Amino acid sequence: MKTLILIAHPDVMDSSTQQFLIESSSTLTGVTTRFLTDDLFDIDYEQELLKNHDRIIFQFPMYWYSAPYMLKKWLDGVFDDKLLKNGLKGKELGLVVSLGVSEKSFAVGQSEKFSLSEIFRPFEALANKCQMNFLPIFSISLFAYMEEVDRKKLLIDYQQYLTKEVDASFKSKENWFIERMSDYVSQTSNEKLANILEKVIENRETLDELSMLVNEMRSADE
Amino acid sequence: MKTLILIAHPDVMDSSTQQFLIESSSTLTGVTTRFLTDDLFDIDYEQELLKNHDRIIFQFPMYWYSAPYMLKKWLDGVFDDKLLKNGLKGKELGLVVSLGVSEKSFAVGQSEKFSLSEIFRPFEALANKCQMNFLPIFSISLFAYMEEVDRKKLLIDYQQYLTKEVDASFKSKENWFIERMSDYVSQTSNEKLANILEKVIENRETLDELSMLVNEMRSADE
Repeated sequence: MKTLILIAHPDVMDSSTQQFLIESSSTLTGVTTRFLTDDLFDIDYEQELLKNHDRIIFQFPMYWYSAPYMLKKWLDGVFDDKLLKNGLKGKELGLVVSLGVSEKSFAVGQSEKFSLSEIFRPFEALANKCQMNFLPIFSISLFAYMEEVDRKKLLIDYQQYLTKEVDASFKSKENWFIERMSDYVSQTSNEKLANILEKVIENRETLDELSMLVNEMRSADE
Repeated sequence: MKTLILIAHPDVMDSSTQQFLIESSSTLTGVTTRFLTDDLFDIDYEQELLKNHDRIIFQFPMYWYSAPYMLKKWLDGVFDDKLLKNGLKGKELGLVVSLGVSEKSFAVGQSEKFSLSEIFRPFEALANKCQMNFLPIFSISLFAYMEEVDRKKLLIDYQQYLTKEVDASFKSKENWFIERMSDYVSQTSNEKLANILEKVIENRETLDELSMLVNEMRSADE
């Protein structure tokens, strides 16, 4: 699966959240990152980029209940009926949104009054129009105050959001880890990790065999 | 009441809808119109403008389930905590949105999947944040195909949306017409209209007197 991240931030270098996310995604294969700015862009090139990826991610800090304007400028320029007709159907659209307030503020009865799902409805409507599958919103609140252990968890969750197939099964999660570990082992030649990886793969194979056996027995019973 | 219209359209001169709306609002007193572009703006000046008006109107064609990017660019630049703390509380925020599709498409079960109220939730959230009163959305669909009689109705509805106080009573509607007619009569010195206006005012005074009489009789009964 190929993933395209479009980052809309007026000053990426100055954002610790964006720097963390960019570093977290840099080790992943099949991930392309683009920085949207106020400048002009080549519409054909941008449309080709979209067509060549399976999962499109808009990544930005929430400014006044939407993305910073450069994402809309890019959308207004790049999205057209031609692209909609032959290019986006069946792809996935995800949002990675950083928040300057606690996520609790978006609960019912709280100060922000509306949930993130409500606030980002225009993007869901866009996905609907383009026949894309809209992914759950990936939100990060108050990154600056996050403990180290929570940042590590965030790193894994974010990497999965970018590249793991949408499937809640344990097998899919395990496969994702096996792929990442294989990448890492082949890059670092860490022997200890290589052994662990071998064990994980063996276990997975044993589980698969058992599962097949159970299915065969079930079929014989019917 | 003073009303500020902020128009976000990439090519106002080329839009028959915007031209119609601009002409419709041009005869109204207390209405200021601003055209938002891609250019830089003076933040202090924009903030002062907002503070000096009671009703703020964002007027734009719907592009990809939101306003064209120049409105967001303006919002990102002009809105800040300072403005929120001392400037917008109690004012009104309205949207005048033109649509390239029939409004029916936004009904439940239809192709657009979400209602206009849902699509423009981010603006409602913004109004909530600024302690402004969010007005009902004023939407215009398929203006180009509209009959002359419907355009006349649209003109009045639009003028009322800009300048009539929010109050569903007949008296408030009548007062709005009396004010508009007075403006027109003083500008044109049309004698026939001046006589009609006089009659309308007389009727209103008679109604007010009757209403006072009824209230007095009610009080005496209690």
